[in-house]
Amino acid sequence: MDLAVEKTSSGREYKVKDMSQADFGRLEIELAEVEMPGLMACRAEFGPSQLLKGARITGSLHMTITTAVLIETLTALGASIRWCSCNIFSTKDHAAAAIARDSAAVFAWKGETLQRALDWGIEAGPDLIVDDGGDATLLIHEGVKAEEEYEKRGKVADPTSTDNAEFQIVLTIIRDGLKEDPKKYHKMMERLVGVSEETTTGVKRLYQMQANGTLLFPAINVIDSVTKRKFDNLYGCRHSLPDGLMRAIDVMIAGKVAVVCGYGDVGKGCAAALKQAGARVIVTEIDPICALQALMEGIQVLTLEDVVSEADIFLTTTGNKDIIMVNHMRKMKNNAIVCNIGHFDNEIAMHGLETYPGVKRITIKPQTDRWVFPETRTDIIVLGEGRLMNLGCATGHPSFVMSCSFTSQVIAQLELWKERTTGKYEKVYVLPKHLDEKVAAVHLGKLGAKLTKLTSEQAAYISVPVEGPYKPPHYRY
Amino acid sequence: MDLAVEKTSSGREYKVKDMSQADFGRLEIELAEVEMPGLMACRAEFGPSQLLKGARITGSLHMTITTAVLIETLTALGASIRWCSCNIFSTKDHAAAAIARDSAAVFAWKGETLQRALDWGIEAGPDLIVDDGGDATLLIHEGVKAEEEYEKRGKVADPTSTDNAEFQIVLTIIRDGLKEDPKKYHKMMERLVGVSEETTTGVKRLYQMQANGTLLFPAINVIDSVTKRKFDNLYGCRHSLPDGLMRAIDVMIAGKVAVVCGYGDVGKGCAAALKQAGARVIVTEIDPICALQALMEGIQVLTLEDVVSEADIFLTTTGNKDIIMVNHMRKMKNNAIVCNIGHFDNEIAMHGLETYPGVKRITIKPQTDRWVFPETRTDIIVLGEGRLMNLGCATGHPSFVMSCSFTSQVIAQLELWKERTTGKYEKVYVLPKHLDEKVAAVHLGKLGAKLTKLTSEQAAYISVPVEGPYKPPHYRY
Amino acid sequence: MDLAVEKTSSGREYKVKDMSQADFGRLEIELAEVEMPGLMACRAEFGPSQLLKGARITGSLHMTITTAVLIETLTALGASIRWCSCNIFSTKDHAAAAIARDSAAVFAWKGETLQRALDWGIEAGPDLIVDDGGDATLLIHEGVKAEEEYEKRGKVADPTSTDNAEFQIVLTIIRDGLKEDPKKYHKMMERLVGVSEETTTGVKRLYQMQANGTLLFPAINVIDSVTKRKFDNLYGCRHSLPDGLMRAIDVMIAGKVAVVCGYGDVGKGCAAALKQAGARVIVTEIDPICALQALMEGIQVLTLEDVVSEADIFLTTTGNKDIIMVNHMRKMKNNAIVCNIGHFDNEIAMHGLETYPGVKRITIKPQTDRWVFPETRTDIIVLGEGRLMNLGCATGHPSFVMSCSFTSQVIAQLELWKERTTGKYEKVYVLPKHLDEKVAAVHLGKLGAKLTKLTSEQAAYISVPVEGPYKPPHYRY
Amino acid sequence: MDLAVEKTSSGREYKVKDMSQADFGRLEIELAEVEMPGLMACRAEFGPSQLLKGARITGSLHMTITTAVLIETLTALGASIRWCSCNIFSTKDHAAAAIARDSAAVFAWKGETLQRALDWGIEAGPDLIVDDGGDATLLIHEGVKAEEEYEKRGKVADPTSTDNAEFQIVLTIIRDGLKEDPKKYHKMMERLVGVSEETTTGVKRLYQMQANGTLLFPAINVIDSVTKRKFDNLYGCRHSLPDGLMRAIDVMIAGKVAVVCGYGDVGKGCAAALKQAGARVIVTEIDPICALQALMEGIQVLTLEDVVSEADIFLTTTGNKDIIMVNHMRKMKNNAIVCNIGHFDNEIAMHGLETYPGVKRITIKPQTDRWVFPETRTDIIVLGEGRLMNLGCATGHPSFVMSCSFTSQVIAQLELWKERTTGKYEKVYVLPKHLDEKVAAVHLGKLGAKLTKLTSEQAAYISVPVEGPYKPPHYRY
Repeated sequence: MDLAVEKTSSGREYKVKDMSQADFGRLEIELAEVEMPGLMACRAEFGPSQLLKGARITGSLHMTITTAVLIETLTALGASIRWCSCNIFSTKDHAAAAIARDSAAVFAWKGETLQRALDWGIEAGPDLIVDDGGDATLLIHEGVKAEEEYEKRGKVADPTSTDNAEFQIVLTIIRDGLKEDPKKYHKMMERLVGVSEETTTGVKRLYQMQANGTLLFPAINVIDSVTKRKFDNLYGCRHSLPDGLMRAIDVMIAGKVAVVCGYGDVGKGCAAALKQAGARVIVTEIDPICALQALMEGIQVLTLEDVVSEADIFLTTTGNKDIIMVNHMRKMKNNAIVCNIGHFDNEIAMHGLETYPGVKRITIKPQTDRWVFPETRTDIIVLGEGRLMNLGCATGHPSFVMSCSFTSQVIAQLELWKERTTGKYEKVYVLPKHLDEKVAAVHLGKLGAKLTKLTSEQAAYISVPVEGPYKPPHYRY
Repeated sequence: MDLAVEKTSSGREYKVKDMSQADFGRLEIELAEVEMPGLMACRAEFGPSQLLKGARITGSLHMTITTAVLIETLTALGASIRWCSCNIFSTKDHAAAAIARDSAAVFAWKGETLQRALDWGIEAGPDLIVDDGGDATLLIHEGVKAEEEYEKRGKVADPTSTDNAEFQIVLTIIRDGLKEDPKKYHKMMERLVGVSEETTTGVKRLYQMQANGTLLFPAINVIDSVTKRKFDNLYGCRHSLPDGLMRAIDVMIAGKVAVVCGYGDVGKGCAAALKQAGARVIVTEIDPICALQALMEGIQVLTLEDVVSEADIFLTTTGNKDIIMVNHMRKMKNNAIVCNIGHFDNEIAMHGLETYPGVKRITIKPQTDRWVFPETRTDIIVLGEGRLMNLGCATGHPSFVMSCSFTSQVIAQLELWKERTTGKYEKVYVLPKHLDEKVAAVHLGKLGAKLTKLTSEQAAYISVPVEGPYKPPHYRY
Repeated sequence: MDLAVEKTSSGREYKVKDMSQADFGRLEIELAEVEMPGLMACRAEFGPSQLLKGARITGSLHMTITTAVLIETLTALGASIRWCSCNIFSTKDHAAAAIARDSAAVFAWKGETLQRALDWGIEAGPDLIVDDGGDATLLIHEGVKAEEEYEKRGKVADPTSTDNAEFQIVLTIIRDGLKEDPKKYHKMMERLVGVSEETTTGVKRLYQMQANGTLLFPAINVIDSVTKRKFDNLYGCRHSLPDGLMRAIDVMIAGKVAVVCGYGDVGKGCAAALKQAGARVIVTEIDPICALQALMEGIQVLTLEDVVSEADIFLTTTGNKDIIMVNHMRKMKNNAIVCNIGHFDNEIAMHGLETYPGVKRITIKPQTDRWVFPETRTDIIVLGEGRLMNLGCATGHPSFVMSCSFTSQVIAQLELWKERTTGKYEKVYVLPKHLDEKVAAVHLGKLGAKLTKLTSEQAAYISVPVEGPYKPPHYRY
Repeated sequence: MDLAVEKTSSGREYKVKDMSQADFGRLEIELAEVEMPGLMACRAEFGPSQLLKGARITGSLHMTITTAVLIETLTALGASIRWCSCNIFSTKDHAAAAIARDSAAVFAWKGETLQRALDWGIEAGPDLIVDDGGDATLLIHEGVKAEEEYEKRGKVADPTSTDNAEFQIVLTIIRDGLKEDPKKYHKMMERLVGVSEETTTGVKRLYQMQANGTLLFPAINVIDSVTKRKFDNLYGCRHSLPDGLMRAIDVMIAGKVAVVCGYGDVGKGCAAALKQAGARVIVTEIDPICALQALMEGIQVLTLEDVVSEADIFLTTTGNKDIIMVNHMRKMKNNAIVCNIGHFDNEIAMHGLETYPGVKRITIKPQTDRWVFPETRTDIIVLGEGRLMNLGCATGHPSFVMSCSFTSQVIAQLELWKERTTGKYEKVYVLPKHLDEKVAAVHLGKLGAKLTKLTSEQAAYISVPVEGPYKPPHYRY
């Protein structure tokens, strides 16, 4: 599909060529605002005092309608924004067009977009980063490392030193950057106040860097807010998984056997959706506790090998790699559906599939491909090219649940900016529980809920403040 | 959206101008075939003997991918086909294009399409009709009546004699037909062997005509096959309602209050889907038995007036008219969603809405409109222009469940054709239970099920044949 | 457990010896009355006019608390009652005690109780029968046949002519009756106005007799009222199956594999309950339509042989015989639970189990037995001695759903009595739909439901009366 | 009901007088063993080496069949046991009888039983405590405090100094103990190795004492094992709540309005059970996060005041006090059911109810009482006298889920005993995650599950050991 934008002379920035796309995006943004009470509450509460005034924020996060509401919330609080999509397949053109026309610079081409989003001109970089999957954070860390290497040993980053396609891009950007300015990432690092990170994968890397002592700037772990992980991952996927399946391929879910690899929050949401739609769900798990949870819900727990030849739908939710291999795919039933809603596309061995001798790919429509194996003439249907199928084949999580996640993002950005000179944050942090509870609270009214108030006697009896927080930090919800 | 077809000189037939559309349709038809084991079993069983050889079949039924598989099953059995869509909003362009290129004449313009599908040239009409909503059946009955009127009294059908827009079209076609050939519908009637009817609405009219003694040709009631009504209506809607909602507008269903008007099979399927997706469902009902069923599932039963101002989603499933009136819509919350999955678009007072003084319509995308009331500035979102939202906003029922319905259609057509000279059928009939059971049976293998066989002692004990049918006619399933 | 009653000199009538039992029964009857709005509505509507005044009613139906409310409703309408339990294992002692003390003669010993309930002294028999499983109906029909046989050929009924233990009892009663009065059952037949029958099994026999021309008196088929079969069988079992399991043996249902033999209304209710409690359910079926329904709910359909060695719970719901045989039981896992909620205890081969060489029975508590096979030392747990486990191990269906069934019973009795001299009823009938809808309607208020009223335009549009009935006779709900 | 035991001369120990009770208990214990694979795995793994040899364990925990399997697992590992019930209403007589006959001293009278369970004769006290609700822990801490007070100031503990009935008993025991031996609790404290605690309430107090610096011995917090809280509280209650309701009063759950106060793990399990049984559930909550979770499941969140007059069933699950007050109860519908499955009976204002002027209590059966208010003559039904209804009216959680909890208890006891001289434990601890995962793992085989194994590449990719633990400490499941 043609983008409703064109390349500008200065690079690959979105520039709206089709105003009807921007108009369409604007209409959907307006609808989404009604569904995102948390972000609207942030605008109401923090907008007048322009708390983010002067802050340059670079975002690297799927450019969708809900992200548009996040971007415009940050601008409403005074920030300047440059945005790129962390996954070029997930970009919604009309959302990008509306934002590009009305609110912020948007970049969405493979390879160079992250670099452009980080490029604030002469003074180098952003003050704050909103990151998803840690791409921006990784680039700066690797850039700084490469610059040191270059300074010390004159060694230039070499993209051919890795097999990983994503990392090759990172190294290419860095190599090219070195030529421009051998201190580029150092300058960026110096200016940077901090990052708030949206995903498990990104957070895992942050904790590793914290443990290794290589973390260069403070970070707020948004994914581990209860209102993020236990809502977005669980209820978001429960909604967007069937949406993705139905839009990609109108297969009846009822009566089918569906294998869900992984029964974490994402897997739980997906398994619930499939079960409720009438599928017989089978879970694969490595963790005995999650396995026992699946069993308590009446879901069989087996290995992929046990069921590979009899299931109709295969879904990866693990955040790990090499879950469904070509050898699995070859044994599947004709027209078996294979897709991923975990994190990276390496949950499914897409590379192995693409390079399988004699395999034939027939694109039914964008993001829905039929792959025919030469020996058996059977085919499988792969959704979203192995990337997140709910973003690739549908529109991602619905706005209401994203409002929970993104309200945490806004609060995290506010917190980092407010404390930018105090040294309060130096490592990786989760948001304190009272802010987590606040995020939930601003979403209740929209759904017509009324909370009960503790009396002071009751609060004393269970040893919590009347106004909360109500649970100990280790509470699991 | 532009059709990938063009009008032919001879009228409004589909002629493929965009081969990629036809190719895309063909790919989706191939996928659907795997999901429609009943139709494929018909091809395997009845194809070799070409049982429908010589039969001209006119179909008036939503032109979708699944319908394409039905059409090609009928052609595989030897029939010639002319097809029109019973609802111009539900036509899937790529499905029409593939059929038009490969298999049959397809018509899909408002007004004249039915007429064209019935026009088999010099010898007047079809041998058999596949009808949905009884449009073709109505046209012929009204045509014959008008011709008699004309012959007796010289009176010509007058489209202005009715307010009903659909019926105006019928009368216009008849009036124009009278000029061409004042015996056109009489000739059609004489040739016609019979009709198989897909919907409650159409069947109700057939029984009325049977009761009045005005029925002109035999009919098989397909909707009351268990494998149709209790599958397509129930499980089909359970699947396609959320699909339609999600594609039209990415509203999170969880947490919302959804009002389902009517708790028949369609309402039951929709309520189940909404409940499972996390909505709080409220049902309105006139029938105390259906109301009590809703209550047993934990669903509140109230009147529309009770909840009109607090619900988020309103859905009509009644098959009746005037369910949601403008006065209801005016009291709804901002951004309330209003849609219909019943039969006609008169369940929602679209006419009243369109003519409401000062109302403003903003089309977000095709079939998703925002209507703003002038006094309150609040808006509601109407899906599918009040027509079937699962067909208008999504792709209708999934192929597997349509395979049940359409296998009954094929069997009904075969039966009518086989007995065309025996006089076996003269009125309205449902398929006998053993055929109903057969339809179910051919769908089990695909889902990996294994049936238990009765011993002859057991069969005797419960007084049924070992091979079935297993239930008395009044059994409710 | 000792009965809180003693045999009277006149036979085996309940006579209360333990007033505390009767008091306890009375308390539970009072609670049940609040849950049985249909019966209370009958008392309010028909009590003042004493429409059943003068009618002698014999009931043969499980003597439970809910039955007590039925009995007292019939007496409130003017009837005289003699009651026996159709299944001696289901009698609730405190219910029987309260009724025996306050309202009616109650009999509950094996063998002779039915005879006693039918014995109204010098004038022979009852005017009306409330039957469950057709025991009373069978006895009279067999009695009449035997008397004719005796009169014509002097042949006396011979209990040893059959292997069926239940039928042996029938023949014994008849043989003994012949000695007393060789016209006993003829006299009974002559007086009898009709019977209303509660079960599938009983109704099936009635239709067979109607077809054979051997039916001796009119009958109303209560089981096929929608408000009976689709409520009592479905929602009643959904409630009472887990109740029976939990009271009999505190096995955790979550995580277990449960096999439900039969997916009719009873099977559907049981499968739903087990699934919701977290079991993985597998259904066995002979009927492809019911099998396809199970699949649409995500339930696997296999044969008993496929799963006999891996399931934890086995349940029969078929109404057929020889479903679980000893050869199945021998292959089950240690501590597998085997039970029946169908109709007769011959769904499970109890006789085969009891006579299996070397088998050992260990009674854990009444109605919960462990059977140890000699070869394998494995044991299975059989509930309710193979009889209805929800009545044997728990208290049967809850009162609210029984109120639906029993309201139909009362209406059927009223109808038969009212038309006793008009000849309106001669065969087997179901209650007309408007009465079925009325039964539902009187249960809505208790649950806080509000019905929508049709306008006359809407009623005309769908061709039904404004006041109902709203559905055609073949509607399946 | 009479206990099947008698008081011994030495006090109030269980001594079996009715062998049939003990036999019955033994049969049920044998059945439970099959359902408690975790405890049986402990016997197999740790029994041969007699790791608890020499350890005296005092348990204060509901004396049920599942507790009997725990006790006999501890004895199988070499321990000596003295046991009392932490709640005299929950004692299952046949379980107590079997244990008293076969395995350990059991005490179950109000007031003095805990004292007796702690009394190991001349050498004062136990080595280890298994505690539920912290009663034993509290008694020792208060005893030590009182002895110090007595030593320093000669002041004797005064039961009249408190209104709390439970605490009065504690002070009475301590006062009487002071007379016997003014160093009794000091000696006990010195011997004591540690305690493992089963409940939220008990653990909260432990953390308070740790924070205050008053904790006298190490403790292991078992409730916060995932395999305890997220299984026992959630799935245990999902099972035992309907069990308690059904046994206490055969009310049909379907169609009713049920208010669940609190949506923590217990509330989640109860709400799920009620919803699945067909009730319309309304939740009351103080915590916005838990409230939002309820909404995402389609459950309305309101205050008790909003719904008190229209609901049918009221259930407290909060662990807080004063949730349902007499003023609420007076406004309820006739026959409304009120019960508690939280922790203490003060969730429901039982004292207020008992002392309400003119109120009348009618016991229907033990633990099921009807309370009639004088003004309105309406009554409510209170289950379990306001105590845990699943233990009072049914048999508590099913054995399988208790096996998870109790396996953690055994592992905690082993750990405390093993490290008794190393000083490893000094404060309050949760079990390390690998032990938590192990508890889950030993329960999978029974349910036929198969785990997937990580490859070493995969383990490295997500930075966990191949053998686990697989999740970070803060993971919420």
